Amino acid sequence: MRVESKRAQLEETIGPLNKGIGALKEVQIASCGWNLLREDVSLPAAVLYRDKIAHNLRWMQSFIDTYGVKLAPHGKTTMAPKLFEIQLEGGAWGITLATAHQVQVAYAHGVRRVLMANELVGRRNMEVIADIVADPKFEFYCLVDSLANIDQLGRYFQERGLRLKVLLELGVMGGRCGVRDDAQLSGVIKALERWRGTVDMCGVELYEGVLKDEENIRAFLRRGCDVTKQLLRDRMFEHTPALISGAGSAWYDVVAEEFAAAGFGDAAEIVLRPGCYLTHDVGNYETQQQRILESNPVARNMRSGLVPALHVWAYVQSIPEPELAVVAMGRRDAAFDSGLPRPALHYRPGEKEPRTTPPNWETTKLMDQHGFLKIAAGDDVQVGDMLGFNISHPCLTFDKWRVLAVVDEKYDVVDVVKTYF
Amino acid sequence: MRVESKRAQLEETIGPLNKGIGALKEVQIASCGWNLLREDVSLPAAVLYRDKIAHNLRWMQSFIDTYGVKLAPHGKTTMAPKLFEIQLEGGAWGITLATAHQVQVAYAHGVRRVLMANELVGRRNMEVIADIVADPKFEFYCLVDSLANIDQLGRYFQERGLRLKVLLELGVMGGRCGVRDDAQLSGVIKALERWRGTVDMCGVELYEGVLKDEENIRAFLRRGCDVTKQLLRDRMFEHTPALISGAGSAWYDVVAEEFAAAGFGDAAEIVLRPGCYLTHDVGNYETQQQRILESNPVARNMRSGLVPALHVWAYVQSIPEPELAVVAMGRRDAAFDSGLPRPALHYRPGEKEPRTTPPNWETTKLMDQHGFLKIAAGDDVQVGDMLGFNISHPCLTFDKWRVLAVVDEKYDVVDVVKTYF
Repeated sequence: MRVESKRAQLEETIGPLNKGIGALKEVQIASCGWNLLREDVSLPAAVLYRDKIAHNLRWMQSFIDTYGVKLAPHGKTTMAPKLFEIQLEGGAWGITLATAHQVQVAYAHGVRRVLMANELVGRRNMEVIADIVADPKFEFYCLVDSLANIDQLGRYFQERGLRLKVLLELGVMGGRCGVRDDAQLSGVIKALERWRGTVDMCGVELYEGVLKDEENIRAFLRRGCDVTKQLLRDRMFEHTPALISGAGSAWYDVVAEEFAAAGFGDAAEIVLRPGCYLTHDVGNYETQQQRILESNPVARNMRSGLVPALHVWAYVQSIPEPELAVVAMGRRDAAFDSGLPRPALHYRPGEKEPRTTPPNWETTKLMDQHGFLKIAAGDDVQVGDMLGFNISHPCLTFDKWRVLAVVDEKYDVVDVVKTYF
Repeated sequence: MRVESKRAQLEETIGPLNKGIGALKEVQIASCGWNLLREDVSLPAAVLYRDKIAHNLRWMQSFIDTYGVKLAPHGKTTMAPKLFEIQLEGGAWGITLATAHQVQVAYAHGVRRVLMANELVGRRNMEVIADIVADPKFEFYCLVDSLANIDQLGRYFQERGLRLKVLLELGVMGGRCGVRDDAQLSGVIKALERWRGTVDMCGVELYEGVLKDEENIRAFLRRGCDVTKQLLRDRMFEHTPALISGAGSAWYDVVAEEFAAAGFGDAAEIVLRPGCYLTHDVGNYETQQQRILESNPVARNMRSGLVPALHVWAYVQSIPEPELAVVAMGRRDAAFDSGLPRPALHYRPGEKEPRTTPPNWETTKLMDQHGFLKIAAGDDVQVGDMLGFNISHPCLTFDKWRVLAVVDEKYDVVDVVKTYF
């Protein structure tokens, strides 16, 4: 991550009241000479490892490039414009986002192509987007799956004298949004025809992550390809190439395979939207990554996989029972919705470097501001020791932090990353 | 909540990139003429009801006053200095907080008495606190429960030439921090004697919320009283009155009863620390409040109980199946760790006022940015309708928002509340 940024004008100040860092200018951080292990940072703190982030960035772009598809990383994971910037500089086609507010944040930080993988609903939200799509340099897509929404969008954007690019969202029974069947599909198509020139149909979108097994996912993806081909034949898209987009952070390999194998040629651009690869985790996505490394031929040929690049560091604050260490980190600091943070590194101030934590140490519970670590009686741990925890869901860890510290291999704080949740 | 504030100098600007509001000055909001029902606010948004907040504020202070004890509301719940201010103006003795960062936020916003109901660990955290306690107008207490921590504090504060007020934390086996038994207790007392003049022992603290049933809670509270009385007899406190403090948001009535009945007279000040009463909820604390209203004689005599004063408002964005409405609100917007948000109000833009939601509507799942609402086929709900959800855990809802809108009974936005997580 470069310290200098294109966005040098925009809110570069880190207020003194953000947890984890303290007052400074983003551009000053490298010159502070702060080091995590010298206790320059107020813990708990979320820490990004620069080299691992860079590795993951290259890994995913290389995977995507091998399939000849496009990457629009889901920005809702980090909501960190500085990370959007390195993703775009690394070769991403655009940034995916989930809400009008998120789009506004990205636009304000210079992102000029956004896929909002969600419906746009509500007057003020339409206003936020309309104010931005009025900029001809800004390319924007959102999803539609209902007549009601298309009519609302049509009326609003027609009144503003603006055009809105949309993708048709496909869904599955028991899933989230998206048209379920042919009857819904033809209703939506008719509504889109009615608003042609205002609401422009530009492609097809789906999110396979609502399904849990590979067979159903592949069937859903093929339905997406079939619908896209039919709409191409019917010349229903405003222009070609149309877009076809899928893929969360768990099944992007299967989506790449299916979409690439569909043989769209120049008629469609394939856009994948994994969001969590930059930091990865040691929970759900680690399990999925293992599957990908074992089963996907492209991933198998790549030298290594994604690596966890985000730790939450915290102090041991009390060891009130022989088998319990209480850590100053809780639900306010780390995700707990798909597995608890797992201790990875143990550092005692003054020592040369962190050690790997013993395998028997385990987080058993998080309260709002406290973590419970099960240890064995006599384990070498003291009040005041620092622990680095792997996390299990990057999205819900990032949104706990307004500022994250970026460290190099010596734990020097070389950058800060601000979030905009 | 007054629009003008003592803190008028400090960070009054609401940046344009906070979800739920948009760019403005805090002092301008009332003159914007925004109304929630007119769709002036970008949803999802967290909304505080001014009159209900005021009711809850008065209710708790009145409850506390009747027992003749002191209130130090736990500020970690909201981390909103504007709410700290009304709590202090409403009669609170001080603000309770959980981390050095949180204390820094409160101090910067003019709070001058803080009970940090937690251990203070780590060089930078001690530095943060030392820089503030250097201000003689600032009264600060934190907890100690181990020799190791007391020695660390003693060394650091002695070197800085400062004194630190501490409370002895009592704990229970299987609980969180705090000394478990007499052996630990006498070890800690000895360490405190060693650092007398630097680490000043000012009272006793416990958190009964780690226990689940009333009998054990009462026993723990009585142990707290006994220890305090013994330490008073031994003249172990730096001065009298000593402090004795307990109470989370669930059992404050039992704590008030037990501590008030202990007969400390002028020898000890009783400080209770409920945090969630200002907004209340419809989850855990609603259940507890019901118990309190039924069993506590003081609460029984008060005309009404606490009322939920915080909603998350969101749009219906898709109704892809007859029994499923997808709402644009997810784990990024509301707590989901002790019950999912429950729909309470339903408003269709253009109508006169919100209706109560039918009792059969139920949130069945939250994803990061989406909520799943089970409805019945044919229910009167449309894409673009607005829903106001009650929430189940205020702490983990507040920390999703940097700005909350405050509305009056007409849903006019009359104020904004900023958070500092």
